[in-house]
Amino acid sequence: MSDTTYKVTGMTCQHCVASVTEEISEIDGVTGVAVDLPTGAVTVTSTTPLDDAAVRAAVEEAGYELAG
Amino acid sequence: MSDTTYKVTGMTCQHCVASVTEEISEIDGVTGVAVDLPTGAVTVTSTTPLDDAAVRAAVEEAGYELAG
Repeated sequence: MSDTTYKVTGMTCQHCVASVTEEISEIDGVTGVAVDLPTGAVTVTSTTPLDDAAVRAAVEEAGYELAG
Repeated sequence: MSDTTYKVTGMTCQHCVASVTEEISEIDGVTGVAVDLPTGAVTVTSTTPLDDAAVRAAVEEAGYELAG
């Protein structure tokens, strides 16, 4: 089990948080997603090493952008 | 059929717009809701005169505030 923290831009409210959480939760191996709206920090807990490209795709699917 | 325009504060994204639209659409007689996100202007089309208190309650149910 490992935690990886990403920075997501463009989230403005709890609906945005819910959308990002839902999309990232669908990635294989992900067991938890914690979002801090003011900073855009998204911490993903997973059973296997995360594929950053999959996380980026999930964030973009939700309508937001991964910083960096 | 008449149009009434309200000002709603606190909407930040299209999810917010969808929530407000959904709640106001449930009011008896309402046939259309148009939201302009940048200004917060919400124009409600209805077959009968609108009860402002019902609109205020719907906006608050969605988690936002009616200005004025």
